[in-house]
Amino acid sequence: MRATTLDKTFSALADPTRRAILGRLSQGEASVTELAEPFEMTLPAVSKHLKVLERAGLISRGREAQWRPCRLRAQRLKEVADWVGDYRRFWEESFDRLDEYLREVQAEGTPPEAEDR
Amino acid sequence: MRATTLDKTFSALADPTRRAILGRLSQGEASVTELAEPFEMTLPAVSKHLKVLERAGLISRGREAQWRPCRLRAQRLKEVADWVGDYRRFWEESFDRLDEYLREVQAEGTPPEAEDR
Repeated sequence: MRATTLDKTFSALADPTRRAILGRLSQGEASVTELAEPFEMTLPAVSKHLKVLERAGLISRGREAQWRPCRLRAQRLKEVADWVGDYRRFWEESFDRLDEYLREVQAEGTPPEAEDR
Repeated sequence: MRATTLDKTFSALADPTRRAILGRLSQGEASVTELAEPFEMTLPAVSKHLKVLERAGLISRGREAQWRPCRLRAQRLKEVADWVGDYRRFWEESFDRLDEYLREVQAEGTPPEAEDR
């Protein structure tokens, strides 16, 4: 199977620095220098991460020669949300079951395991 | 930075076959043989994908020696939904802006660009 948009998106998101960069850009556009600062990374290292994010369509960069501000792009993140949203009923079911269990325990009083402690 | 749980989750999801396996498991548990069938893959190839999914906590496997059914686990997917949910306002803003634009266009009649066609 060929690499899809979602493949590229998930792959780009599988890195804590890249997710932190997106977090920073959620507060407003920033230059490479501004992005490098909090991460104590070299400019080339940050640039490499930005290239991955840009290729995945998660950010865009201005065309100004000197500054080229980076901006968050939401469409790819929406696709992730849509994809994972199809599984929502599974974790909601898990919580429903936990909820049910806790209600049962409360109705019955102290659970047996707790008495052994 | 060390690999976090989210790193492993996103990395495991960056593959169309693995996402398709999760899709199949959302309909109910399945054996490796059952999973291999629709993908026209060899059992070792499927097993390899299952190992990645299991290590990422996206599936669990039964302990029955012969069958070992695979099951979807929702917790990691919920973490993805929580993470990406923090960015929701960005795509909702984009749609709001598009909405606003479309309303303006409708109010003004045919947009100028359309007249050039």
